[in-house]
Amino acid sequence: MSPAHMTQGKGIHLCMPSDARESAAKRLAVAKGHLEGVLRMLGEGDVYCVDVMRQLKAVMGALDKARDVVLEGHLRNHVATAQTRGDGQEIVAELMGVLKYR
Amino acid sequence: MSPAHMTQGKGIHLCMPSDARESAAKRLAVAKGHLEGVLRMLGEGDVYCVDVMRQLKAVMGALDKARDVVLEGHLRNHVATAQTRGDGQEIVAELMGVLKYR
Amino acid sequence: MSPAHMTQGKGIHLCMPSDARESAAKRLAVAKGHLEGVLRMLGEGDVYCVDVMRQLKAVMGALDKARDVVLEGHLRNHVATAQTRGDGQEIVAELMGVLKYR
Amino acid sequence: MSPAHMTQGKGIHLCMPSDARESAAKRLAVAKGHLEGVLRMLGEGDVYCVDVMRQLKAVMGALDKARDVVLEGHLRNHVATAQTRGDGQEIVAELMGVLKYR
Repeated sequence: MSPAHMTQGKGIHLCMPSDARESAAKRLAVAKGHLEGVLRMLGEGDVYCVDVMRQLKAVMGALDKARDVVLEGHLRNHVATAQTRGDGQEIVAELMGVLKYR
Repeated sequence: MSPAHMTQGKGIHLCMPSDARESAAKRLAVAKGHLEGVLRMLGEGDVYCVDVMRQLKAVMGALDKARDVVLEGHLRNHVATAQTRGDGQEIVAELMGVLKYR
Repeated sequence: MSPAHMTQGKGIHLCMPSDARESAAKRLAVAKGHLEGVLRMLGEGDVYCVDVMRQLKAVMGALDKARDVVLEGHLRNHVATAQTRGDGQEIVAELMGVLKYR
Repeated sequence: MSPAHMTQGKGIHLCMPSDARESAAKRLAVAKGHLEGVLRMLGEGDVYCVDVMRQLKAVMGALDKARDVVLEGHLRNHVATAQTRGDGQEIVAELMGVLKYR
């Protein structure tokens, strides 16, 4: 459990908003289907490297977009409200840990 | 079918080397399992955004490594041998299309 | 002038905190020196491609870190306080515009 | 001096082609001017974080494009000709070192 998740034992429990959860899940399900397609390609003997890289690029693009959905929901619902809760330092340090060196 | 794939109708058919295929498939199978874990997390009501982003970052790291395996096999087996086959212009233009703006 | 910058005409003017400004400027000055070194390399006839790419990678790493300094200051000083000011929607939409498709 | 640079002591000296050198230098000079603009912004007291991040994103985009010019020249002039010279293993390993985990 992450520090900001429990906001310093104040019993506040931050959860992902359900619209972001559904939107991210939908995108990730599509990415998973795409990834399964790449695995099938690799099972065939005559697959061409550049075709595989192109498909992988598309899968990564889909994951990037899913991540942006999660990030936007987090910023809106948890970061923008941090001063009110009083856990701004923790929530920003935690978020920087996921964002940096990306 | 990509231009370099058929190397200008000379009937040369470039295929992914089997060791790169197996190594990439192994990594992608792990990434797929990881992605399924993220989808399960999103199915639960009390998932935390930063935990989802952390997991997605790990999945993307696995895809990046799988891509590097494919890229290295391509460079070694198809790009480094291009002058001998005579399709250097095509194979480089094609590869830049996948690599740039990455 | 960006929408959140003036926070909907309420006359609140968001400025970069001076410690983030100084820290980012210091890192960017180093990156600029490094970039000038790459330009000098390119002025010589016998420079090797991979050496140039390695130097450019280092410059980009330095810019990434400078950007993280600016991002962290923004999250801490402007995003985490958005609910209090009442401009959460605008400030998050604006930030997503810079972060996504990165 | 990198291993492929001297191609195993065979006295072959790989140099960046002059058109790639000029094109990369031109782009990097523009990026440097842009970066100097960001440094000037940071010298002013009332700069806004998101404006700085936007400018940095543009500078990084310019560096990415300069890198692509160098990469394309390298692939075309040095990697695609590797089998003929006999240093394919070294030149690919060296290139992967700059490309991966990018």
